[in-house]
Amino acid sequence: MIDKQFLMIPGPTPVPQTALLEMGKAPLGHRSTEFSAILKETYADLKWLFQTNNNVFIFTASGTGAMEAALANILNPGDKVLSLVIGNFGERLAKISETRGAEVERMTFEFGQTVDLDMLKERLNKDVNKEIKVITVTHSETSTGCANPIKDIMAIIREHGALSVVDGVTSVGAMDVKPDEWGIDILITGSQKGLMIPPGLSFLMASDRAMKAYEECKYPSFYFDFKAHKKAVEGDTTPYTPAVSLICALNATLKMMKEEGLENIFARHKRLALGLRKAIRAIGLKLFVEDDNKASYSITSILPPEGISVADIRKGLKNDFDIVVADGQNALKGKIFRMGTLGYVCERDVIGAIGALELTLKKLGADIELGSGVKAFLESLN
Amino acid sequence: MIDKQFLMIPGPTPVPQTALLEMGKAPLGHRSTEFSAILKETYADLKWLFQTNNNVFIFTASGTGAMEAALANILNPGDKVLSLVIGNFGERLAKISETRGAEVERMTFEFGQTVDLDMLKERLNKDVNKEIKVITVTHSETSTGCANPIKDIMAIIREHGALSVVDGVTSVGAMDVKPDEWGIDILITGSQKGLMIPPGLSFLMASDRAMKAYEECKYPSFYFDFKAHKKAVEGDTTPYTPAVSLICALNATLKMMKEEGLENIFARHKRLALGLRKAIRAIGLKLFVEDDNKASYSITSILPPEGISVADIRKGLKNDFDIVVADGQNALKGKIFRMGTLGYVCERDVIGAIGALELTLKKLGADIELGSGVKAFLESLN
Repeated sequence: MIDKQFLMIPGPTPVPQTALLEMGKAPLGHRSTEFSAILKETYADLKWLFQTNNNVFIFTASGTGAMEAALANILNPGDKVLSLVIGNFGERLAKISETRGAEVERMTFEFGQTVDLDMLKERLNKDVNKEIKVITVTHSETSTGCANPIKDIMAIIREHGALSVVDGVTSVGAMDVKPDEWGIDILITGSQKGLMIPPGLSFLMASDRAMKAYEECKYPSFYFDFKAHKKAVEGDTTPYTPAVSLICALNATLKMMKEEGLENIFARHKRLALGLRKAIRAIGLKLFVEDDNKASYSITSILPPEGISVADIRKGLKNDFDIVVADGQNALKGKIFRMGTLGYVCERDVIGAIGALELTLKKLGADIELGSGVKAFLESLN
Repeated sequence: MIDKQFLMIPGPTPVPQTALLEMGKAPLGHRSTEFSAILKETYADLKWLFQTNNNVFIFTASGTGAMEAALANILNPGDKVLSLVIGNFGERLAKISETRGAEVERMTFEFGQTVDLDMLKERLNKDVNKEIKVITVTHSETSTGCANPIKDIMAIIREHGALSVVDGVTSVGAMDVKPDEWGIDILITGSQKGLMIPPGLSFLMASDRAMKAYEECKYPSFYFDFKAHKKAVEGDTTPYTPAVSLICALNATLKMMKEEGLENIFARHKRLALGLRKAIRAIGLKLFVEDDNKASYSITSILPPEGISVADIRKGLKNDFDIVVADGQNALKGKIFRMGTLGYVCERDVIGAIGALELTLKKLGADIELGSGVKAFLESLN
């Protein structure tokens, strides 16, 4: 049906009407007093969202841009980086570090699992000369649907003293992250995720320690330059022309988020994801991340029943129900499908998606008791 | 008046309703077949717009991002760059080259003037060992309203053999640039200019020679990586999540541009800019770029009459007529104001702006014969 598409992929996520109306307005001049006032409010609201007293920079770029910004501004050729990899996006942070000439050591864990805290502790204890300068880690790993115990990981990193770069692309605004309290040096996210607007913006929080590392960076990025962005935040502006329409939309969704409240937003994501997981089990399907304690609340990875392809499930959901779910990435392509509960998603949406999945699977020949998944989800809400 | 603001700054420029409606639609999934089809069309139309057989990459970033992309992917520390500077944006290309560790030599010309061809020829003749690897140059210099004779400059550069990086931010889609015919290696532009959509995207054409230089680049950008973008263009996709709403809007405006035709678009910009210049002279004001042959057709810089401030002129135009014009930048702040005729601007718009300027000046105490500017403009159209 026209205009009825529901994006259940891990971003872009659904966009509320209020934000779409902002997108559809003629853009303001980026140096106007009106836009400056919007930016001032937005920068302040981003600090609230990031739960930080540090500045949060806005980049006109998608999440990978913020990843490059994080690393390009603190790394020099030859620097030692430890990358904790639990999926594709953890690998991306390692790759970007390599493009900056860093010496990268990967600790790779089985995809679908989280970082092993004991192994991390052991590795860092061995680094008696503190050679590791930066540790990169993903909070919610979008490619697997796994969420790292980031608070515990940070406690271990903090004891060592390395700089920490945390990818919060599918966690900020969905799952609790407290950079100041937990000692995160750089935390990034993107616009088309928990922030409920279309893609095109990304965000980066830099601690004082990160800003110090920037000062010693030989070839920092010009476009993503920390100092230029810091100065801009302080002047209610941006160093270069920003995507003004997206920022006006963001201003609107941040207001919506403040009205809902961070605790309520986190609780909603947890409720929907854990409820969806119950439903998936009740239908008789397997979860890629079996342990609820290791599950991301933004994205749920599901194995198709034997004999039914991911492609057919995705096609059925799209053609009959206008629901778009994601395939697996790289080695997981065709092995899992991923359903997002990220951002502007409510109970009603998930009920609809579960019912649609049930009928799609049944039509494809699976032995499904229609309504069983929805029943489990509703019971979880009760 | 609400919703009546007319942006006459050199970007963001006015956005047609068709593009605004695209912006206000819920975003498509960036890996969907629907979006892939839109991208395929858009990439092809960008080649048409750039008058090139080379690929044109789309970056989710504003113009400065494309500037960084141009230089970060071809420069190594120690490389020699010659930057031809006729204003702030020429200076920016020099600065970015420095952040990549290049050894930058600036040839700076008086702001308001164009590159002196004889001086350039002489400098390049001296470079017998071909030490200069890259030459950066601005086509239409947004900060002054000057346009370099880019075809002639390219002939000189081609004879030398250095790689050329041309900033076409306010020229592509407004003034004629033929990269293949003239031998431009890298040509960039932004979305909020001649392309008639809001800011947030930028574009880069890379020649085979530029792609070869990329192969030898030690620390290319990850986010702006040429190879990743080339591969993406060939697969009707983007390497990372793009600003899908902006690309859908761009797809719409490129269709509008094709319908109008490149020659007609260039003629319209020339007609409006030269007509505006006639009007400014008829009103009795001075143009910052006196020679019509050196004038940009995108942006016109005007000196305020003695005793009247740029701030008051801008305030009057905005408060009474909802017209936003730009101040000068840096050293030119308060010395000139700049009126754009760039992108989605027609005769009626410019007539309105000239009339508004006349009355604003008169109210501020200038000795103005009301209607004199409009008359000159209309005569120029006749």
